Amino acid sequence: MRQSVSLDRCTRLLNHGPTVLVSAQHEGRRNVMAAAWSMPLDFLPPKVAVVLDKATHTRTLVEADGHFVLNVPPLALAALTHRVGNSSGRDIDKFAHGDVAAEPGPASGAPLVTGCVAWLECRRLPEPHIEQRYDLFLGEVVAAWADDRVFRGGRWHFDGADESLRTIHHIAGGHFLTIGDALKISPDD
Amino acid sequence: MRQSVSLDRCTRLLNHGPTVLVSAQHEGRRNVMAAAWSMPLDFLPPKVAVVLDKATHTRTLVEADGHFVLNVPPLALAALTHRVGNSSGRDIDKFAHGDVAAEPGPASGAPLVTGCVAWLECRRLPEPHIEQRYDLFLGEVVAAWADDRVFRGGRWHFDGADESLRTIHHIAGGHFLTIGDALKISPDD
Repeated sequence: MRQSVSLDRCTRLLNHGPTVLVSAQHEGRRNVMAAAWSMPLDFLPPKVAVVLDKATHTRTLVEADGHFVLNVPPLALAALTHRVGNSSGRDIDKFAHGDVAAEPGPASGAPLVTGCVAWLECRRLPEPHIEQRYDLFLGEVVAAWADDRVFRGGRWHFDGADESLRTIHHIAGGHFLTIGDALKISPDD
Repeated sequence: MRQSVSLDRCTRLLNHGPTVLVSAQHEGRRNVMAAAWSMPLDFLPPKVAVVLDKATHTRTLVEADGHFVLNVPPLALAALTHRVGNSSGRDIDKFAHGDVAAEPGPASGAPLVTGCVAWLECRRLPEPHIEQRYDLFLGEVVAAWADDRVFRGGRWHFDGADESLRTIHHIAGGHFLTIGDALKISPDD
């Protein structure tokens, strides 16, 4: 079930480097794309960075609306992730093709993709120079959510959960790695 | 054994979001720190982004020398990664304390930390505004290397290798996740 995650812990949703779905909307048009290149940028207020290629329709929506969501898809959405990463919202409405569902984020209005295990609603922090030169977009997280079957008490808990809920980490060309098991380092190690 | 990785494939070393060790040197002083916040930024020429806090000694060395290395530590170096992430090179010489060894990178002179499974030698791309405002540093990869026990033919191959060679992904406070198994999505999935 989707639960709110406090902003001071929300960078933990991205800290381990999962591939994300970036979603945005503007004036009734929605889109979603896959992105392997995102990361946290600051703790509080929490900020994130994500690379959005100039060719993407999602980028156009982010620029127009000023908000985006980083959705963290689990293994169950691996095929969907690969598919939305290999088609363009300029050509098709990805939400009209059956398997991609979403609802508006309470804080941003941008789409929260159904079936993901974490969601970070973000307000774009305009930085025109790096957006143009490097396709690098920054955002402040304004609300965060996670599926409490795998994230609760400020931590991921994949070990006891269904395999299909593990995050996925894209390498290239449809090759992914799933996240593995937990490890705790104590100060004496 | 450490093998060269072609620049057009080197972003794959970071694509799955491992925690890295950032190392740098200047005029005989060396340092290394841990960073969960790094990502690729472009394919060719390959670029990366990494967050370097103003308090870090490594950042001072990067600013002075203009080079840094993103080293990818495996599970075998988890305790070392946690330790160098919780001490400052302003206070101690981390390389003088026994368990951190390195040799100069052929392309940059910056330290390649022994026992890592991948290394990206980078030249800083100075962007003063985002360095000051967000602690965000960009670099162009000038040489890349990987341990051929786990990365060969342009791909990670953790499944058949020793567990101790898997990459680690920090969450918070000494809690890590190790990378899991491979998954291939075909176009028909």
